[in-house]
Amino acid sequence: MHLRLALIGYGNVGRAFVGLLKGKEGELSDRYDLTCSIVGVATRSRGGFIASEGGSLELSEAGLPDTGMPPGAARHERDTLAFLRACPADVVIEVSTLSPLDGQPALGYMRAALESGKHVVTANKGPLANAYRELRDLAAERGLALRFESTVIDGLPVFNLVEFCLPASRILGFRGIVNSTSNLVLTRMEEGQTMEAGIAEAQRVGLAEADPSFDLDGWDAAAKAAVLANVLMDAGIRPAQVLRENVNMEAMRAMQAALGPGQVLRQVAEGRADGGSVRCAVRLEALPATHPFAQVRGTRNILTLQTDTMRDVTIQEDECTPRQTAFGLLSDLVAVARSRGR
Amino acid sequence: MHLRLALIGYGNVGRAFVGLLKGKEGELSDRYDLTCSIVGVATRSRGGFIASEGGSLELSEAGLPDTGMPPGAARHERDTLAFLRACPADVVIEVSTLSPLDGQPALGYMRAALESGKHVVTANKGPLANAYRELRDLAAERGLALRFESTVIDGLPVFNLVEFCLPASRILGFRGIVNSTSNLVLTRMEEGQTMEAGIAEAQRVGLAEADPSFDLDGWDAAAKAAVLANVLMDAGIRPAQVLRENVNMEAMRAMQAALGPGQVLRQVAEGRADGGSVRCAVRLEALPATHPFAQVRGTRNILTLQTDTMRDVTIQEDECTPRQTAFGLLSDLVAVARSRGR
Repeated sequence: MHLRLALIGYGNVGRAFVGLLKGKEGELSDRYDLTCSIVGVATRSRGGFIASEGGSLELSEAGLPDTGMPPGAARHERDTLAFLRACPADVVIEVSTLSPLDGQPALGYMRAALESGKHVVTANKGPLANAYRELRDLAAERGLALRFESTVIDGLPVFNLVEFCLPASRILGFRGIVNSTSNLVLTRMEEGQTMEAGIAEAQRVGLAEADPSFDLDGWDAAAKAAVLANVLMDAGIRPAQVLRENVNMEAMRAMQAALGPGQVLRQVAEGRADGGSVRCAVRLEALPATHPFAQVRGTRNILTLQTDTMRDVTIQEDECTPRQTAFGLLSDLVAVARSRGR
Repeated sequence: MHLRLALIGYGNVGRAFVGLLKGKEGELSDRYDLTCSIVGVATRSRGGFIASEGGSLELSEAGLPDTGMPPGAARHERDTLAFLRACPADVVIEVSTLSPLDGQPALGYMRAALESGKHVVTANKGPLANAYRELRDLAAERGLALRFESTVIDGLPVFNLVEFCLPASRILGFRGIVNSTSNLVLTRMEEGQTMEAGIAEAQRVGLAEADPSFDLDGWDAAAKAAVLANVLMDAGIRPAQVLRENVNMEAMRAMQAALGPGQVLRQVAEGRADGGSVRCAVRLEALPATHPFAQVRGTRNILTLQTDTMRDVTIQEDECTPRQTAFGLLSDLVAVARSRGR
């Protein structure tokens, strides 16, 4: 099978994906009989480039050329939606930067991709946190794949784990550390550094934005909790409906100062079935040092799924870099190929 | 799709599987369009029973009737190999009790099942630890499935995780706590109980045999390490080639007594690529209380896979009961149905 790909966004994750795709060319072909070519790429600042008919783009992991078209490109579309309609791709890899709270503009891109008959693989939690049911139904109507492993804990298998490895199971709840910035900052405070030093480190390694409040106020975790609840528990909720309790910089400082001996502070996201609905929350929690989450330090993430078949299943990521996120996209791409190969 | 099943063995795991299959009938049909019937069951003491043509057996979760045939049976075959050849099953669920070190008699059952054109799903580590390549090749030759999720850490996704959720990845090594009896005993010793009390508890909950040395001397973990290395790293080794270093009851007692403050003792199984070969070992290790494995208490298990794509991926099981093992069989059964449905 051959899949033609279009990338929306070409930042760290998109570039890592292109590198991984090249590095795994042999394995993809040998194990899954899958070859891929990139026939389009669009960024907010540069617009969209489309390969010549039957050809493909040669993208450098260093980024797009500063001026002119990337090698192999034959056409330029300034508008991303026009690019999406014109690009002859089978799969759109959606890794644009966006507002994770309302999901735009990525949500519009994903709609346009599905409406023009293209499978969607995305790392963007915003659209899933806000409009999962709509996108799921749109994809199903058109017989297309919509995959999003990298929206929560990068490429660590979460959604694919439930779909492929926990068959006939119901997810009754979840609990985890899903925001790397806050975990790095809390770990550094635990080690005696200031919150500011922790934030500066998170910014230096490319985790946190100039304004870290999106992470530290629990919005990132709330968006991820909404995705988990929407996909795994059919919750139909939005990030604003996730309770954010006592989770901000002042609370971090105050709770850290008030910790008892042997306790550590963690930002925990959870969801649980409650009658017919799902309650989600993000909280700062003081945990005993013997708690499994207490050993999750730095940029590591962990997630426990409560199931009706296996009780608790816990998965843990070692470290998050763009390469891990790119791997989630690759996993999804292989899943698309496998499901289409039937 | 309809799959006719034959069970080899009808102990705790086989009975839990029958219960789970009944409980999940609706979900299997709704989600995977899969229905199952049991057309045969064989045990060492009772021989094999085969359903009447086109019919199925009604098996009680309480076990086989003490005398006579189970409801629905029309034929009795004393010999398990003759039963396997005669039974009109699509899939053999192999959960016999056996010697895990040479894999017999289950290895013979699995060969006979594959040779008579039946898919095999097994919870028995012995055959995989000793003859994985032979069985894999035999299944591939015949175009049949051979699945064994429950051989290591019960139904926790390990082999299915790698196959379905870590595509195009290489497994470079693994490290984990995979033996529940030793972990329960070590946890109890850590809490101040005697080794004997811990062993008695493991026997009481049905984990340990009358002779606990198979678990405490590291043979169970060595067999599991061999399965992991053979399947995930193509090692071609046998349990006897797994180094068992300082792992026995005397060492447990001595090392527990010599632990420093804040240290805990764990039985750790590992494998790592070493040039062209794979080195496996089972050891008692003194770990700091802050080590992630230190928080794995009682009958819990944990496994870290070292990959070339995601660095370390860690999975953890909450508790192991026959129901968890039965779930691994069900996962494999669904995987058989999915691969055949293509």
